[in-house]
Amino acid sequence: MAQVVGFIGLGIMGRPMAKNLLKAGYPLVVHSRSQGPVDELVGAGAKAASSPADVATQVDVLITMLPNSPDVELVALGKNGIIERAKSNLLFLDMSTISPIVSQKIGKALSAKGVRMLDAPVSGGEKGAIDAALSIMVGGEKSDFDAALPVFQAMGKTITHLGPLGAGGFTKLANQIIVAVNLTALGEALTLARKAGLDRSLTLKALGAGLAGSKCLEQKTPNYVSGTYNPGFKIDLHFKDLGLIMESSRALGVPLPCTAVVQELFNALRVKGRGGLDHSGVITLLEELAGISEKA
Amino acid sequence: MAQVVGFIGLGIMGRPMAKNLLKAGYPLVVHSRSQGPVDELVGAGAKAASSPADVATQVDVLITMLPNSPDVELVALGKNGIIERAKSNLLFLDMSTISPIVSQKIGKALSAKGVRMLDAPVSGGEKGAIDAALSIMVGGEKSDFDAALPVFQAMGKTITHLGPLGAGGFTKLANQIIVAVNLTALGEALTLARKAGLDRSLTLKALGAGLAGSKCLEQKTPNYVSGTYNPGFKIDLHFKDLGLIMESSRALGVPLPCTAVVQELFNALRVKGRGGLDHSGVITLLEELAGISEKA
Amino acid sequence: MAQVVGFIGLGIMGRPMAKNLLKAGYPLVVHSRSQGPVDELVGAGAKAASSPADVATQVDVLITMLPNSPDVELVALGKNGIIERAKSNLLFLDMSTISPIVSQKIGKALSAKGVRMLDAPVSGGEKGAIDAALSIMVGGEKSDFDAALPVFQAMGKTITHLGPLGAGGFTKLANQIIVAVNLTALGEALTLARKAGLDRSLTLKALGAGLAGSKCLEQKTPNYVSGTYNPGFKIDLHFKDLGLIMESSRALGVPLPCTAVVQELFNALRVKGRGGLDHSGVITLLEELAGISEKA
Amino acid sequence: MAQVVGFIGLGIMGRPMAKNLLKAGYPLVVHSRSQGPVDELVGAGAKAASSPADVATQVDVLITMLPNSPDVELVALGKNGIIERAKSNLLFLDMSTISPIVSQKIGKALSAKGVRMLDAPVSGGEKGAIDAALSIMVGGEKSDFDAALPVFQAMGKTITHLGPLGAGGFTKLANQIIVAVNLTALGEALTLARKAGLDRSLTLKALGAGLAGSKCLEQKTPNYVSGTYNPGFKIDLHFKDLGLIMESSRALGVPLPCTAVVQELFNALRVKGRGGLDHSGVITLLEELAGISEKA
Repeated sequence: MAQVVGFIGLGIMGRPMAKNLLKAGYPLVVHSRSQGPVDELVGAGAKAASSPADVATQVDVLITMLPNSPDVELVALGKNGIIERAKSNLLFLDMSTISPIVSQKIGKALSAKGVRMLDAPVSGGEKGAIDAALSIMVGGEKSDFDAALPVFQAMGKTITHLGPLGAGGFTKLANQIIVAVNLTALGEALTLARKAGLDRSLTLKALGAGLAGSKCLEQKTPNYVSGTYNPGFKIDLHFKDLGLIMESSRALGVPLPCTAVVQELFNALRVKGRGGLDHSGVITLLEELAGISEKA
Repeated sequence: MAQVVGFIGLGIMGRPMAKNLLKAGYPLVVHSRSQGPVDELVGAGAKAASSPADVATQVDVLITMLPNSPDVELVALGKNGIIERAKSNLLFLDMSTISPIVSQKIGKALSAKGVRMLDAPVSGGEKGAIDAALSIMVGGEKSDFDAALPVFQAMGKTITHLGPLGAGGFTKLANQIIVAVNLTALGEALTLARKAGLDRSLTLKALGAGLAGSKCLEQKTPNYVSGTYNPGFKIDLHFKDLGLIMESSRALGVPLPCTAVVQELFNALRVKGRGGLDHSGVITLLEELAGISEKA
Repeated sequence: MAQVVGFIGLGIMGRPMAKNLLKAGYPLVVHSRSQGPVDELVGAGAKAASSPADVATQVDVLITMLPNSPDVELVALGKNGIIERAKSNLLFLDMSTISPIVSQKIGKALSAKGVRMLDAPVSGGEKGAIDAALSIMVGGEKSDFDAALPVFQAMGKTITHLGPLGAGGFTKLANQIIVAVNLTALGEALTLARKAGLDRSLTLKALGAGLAGSKCLEQKTPNYVSGTYNPGFKIDLHFKDLGLIMESSRALGVPLPCTAVVQELFNALRVKGRGGLDHSGVITLLEELAGISEKA
Repeated sequence: MAQVVGFIGLGIMGRPMAKNLLKAGYPLVVHSRSQGPVDELVGAGAKAASSPADVATQVDVLITMLPNSPDVELVALGKNGIIERAKSNLLFLDMSTISPIVSQKIGKALSAKGVRMLDAPVSGGEKGAIDAALSIMVGGEKSDFDAALPVFQAMGKTITHLGPLGAGGFTKLANQIIVAVNLTALGEALTLARKAGLDRSLTLKALGAGLAGSKCLEQKTPNYVSGTYNPGFKIDLHFKDLGLIMESSRALGVPLPCTAVVQELFNALRVKGRGGLDHSGVITLLEELAGISEKA
């Protein structure tokens, strides 16, 4: 018989992920701060629960998809949190992007109550979530990973076990370095090209065919061509991840000169009120510095 | 009857490109500073010429593949240069990566002698050259582009006409920004991952599957896994290109904060005697700054 | 009759500051984690107390000089902390360099107990502390500043009231930006000069006479000439301050591209085991990147 | 009898320098591209000459104060240049800020004609030029330096012999690194302070008293307080010097990560049409990135 799955956090990413679990046939118990998404999931066949603890007591596997470290800490260890009423042997999968150091701390606290934890942040954005095509980066015990695999497969395509608890998060941070810096590189390159008088579509086509080709270039081409940067993945959220990256890089002693400069650019974008743009919108700042206005 | 093609500059890239022209059935006249590569091409069916002027007088299409702007300027406009004895209506294809501003200057001088010019730098590296799979970025008149297309197709797969003379070069510089910065991003990300205790192969597999995926990641994975950085494309050459980029960015008024930092890292690598490494070897500096030594 | 002053935190800075209070005639009650400095001050005429609370109950003015935000928070608000037994109307002067946001939080908590607080971080280093020549940057109520002024004057020369609680700290962070970045600028300039074959003493003399002249250049000249970087002010501590700066800059929305790069250099120095060097020792990293080794 | 001095280049700096030579009693022969300044100097007692060669034939000591390397090269070695009609044993003092490598090349060419050369760029700005208080950084033979000293003393206060030809220029470049980066540091620090709600005058007073104190802070305080950035020394000129710095740093193999970022900021300022502001005006870009407008 299928395991019962819990899902806490029904935001832009969480909603389609939860729906894919329903599609895969898992009985689902959901909880979220906003009622709208809960109603939507209930309409699709899920059952609502009144608190994280109330979810924890009803399920075999519990997934969280929340904004940041303190949110997960609260849901896991706080009042009415998972820890209060978790079934023994509950498998807890945190798929949020949070500090790997906090993941390790939560895992330790939960393990004292017999709860097993994996950290399993994702890459692929809203589109990947909808298409059940996420890349899922997992840290924790191999046996727990094996147990969780069918559940992950309902939401993602590439599912990789990367090491002990925290390894998923560190891999996700590595991912976010590459994406933020590569989007900045694209911004610098395309701004130079535009000021040299080149046509943007043609430039992107030529660049994509060579060593400069990347998922970022491919996926963001429509944004660059239209000059509109609707999310996708918001600058505000990527800025949050850059904060986690820098925190880790200082804790581990890893100088990141390029990422540090990119973080300042993202900071400037937020100040300018563009935190709600897609992260590819970093180009708008570079264009501005070069005296170009998008859609003048 | 097939057009006669000339080829000047038989280095790491030029040699396999010239061979692919022979394979495609073009009669080929070659010239290079070193005798070895000339002999190699003659062995494969080419004819040797004693100077650029001597090539120019025998061919319909003339290709140059040389290190930098002054080299092309000398071969095109200098003593015993193309300009001295070019057949009228010669089609000159400079496939080197040089300053687009110098390309425009050379094109103007040659056009006074009835020589038509395209700037057509490439991306794809030695492997792309060998496999006739280069991406070729072309600037110049559309009719000249159409005339040159079959010749380009013998050497590359994606051939794009990007605008007037210089457009090829500016696109190539945009390409080199993205590649240098993305390789630095990979260096920063993989260094963080290693200090977090992650396994490099697994990390690369997971990263490649998400939005961080790129041709760079794919093509350089063996280097990152083995910790050996044999070229490929040398740091010294990419540093040269970064110089061309910065020259253009200042001339056009395009601030490039990330690329500027990357240029300093490449400068440091040269100082440390690593200019001969593949450009993915920028990671060795980042690892060093983080207190890691690659297997010596 | 002179007010009784308390002093908590007898490190490199605190010790000479406390001694200057004794010299100025203030009855002094001290507390510190290490017994050595306490004995030293007792030998000079101070009285020892067993805890922060024990100091707070005996004094009119209480000074803390501690490493970082959590230390001050613990001493002020923790178990056996100031808040437990402070005399009503106690004037609390925190002269540590900590997060201005934490200062504001502590001030609010203490004010509920009738304790008035100023944040008053200093600049000038160990030498300034010994010579009673510190620059003291003060935030808080003007009337409290006036009341504290004679006490500050026993330790410093330039004492400035800069605004409400937190203003001292923000000014100190501004100071630390300038010093860290200017020391990096000196490092880059002197490294270029050395590789151009110039004599370091002569270079510094010429630079000091023009617009490049600064307290940093003056005060650090002996280090640069001898190539030895004994603290002074340690890289580890300045790195801590850079962390406070970046935290504030993100909270307030102030991009700091230069400071961000400098922070990565300081991070690299710590990784290389040079956190104990004077902050002017940032030049050793720049020299290394340029292939120069300081006399080992 | 006093030596006859020639002066070529009567711009913002050259004009007051030439006047100070007249005040010191030197017979003066001048030449400049604009007639206005020539008339002004002639009104003050100088004699006009029609070309650099025409100056060179009439004087014992010849000074140039010109915008950049090609200008000096043209005046020294070009048509109607110094080299054409220089008196044997002419002492040529180039006080412009140009590439030290070009200085060495010019010196070599002139020495073949018996002309001795010193490179002697200055620091101190227009005010230093007017007050005869420049810092003069000199490279060349010690005996030539001794011979030129009285002439230098009519224009400057601190005159330092730094080594062979080129040493003056390299020292000047080191100076320009420190000034550009320190002004950027001031910009970042004062922007953070302003967004924290601090009063700018008070902040500057407090900062100036501690280790952050510098000639830049002192001299630019009126600009920062009024929010107006009239030159002084223009961003356009400092950007030119940053180009010379980067050229040298790459030739010598000296990575300059901070200076590289600063150069991009100066580039952005030029693009925004602020190249005519005083270099302290780099703060206007940092304020803009932080969402502050000067004098809105």
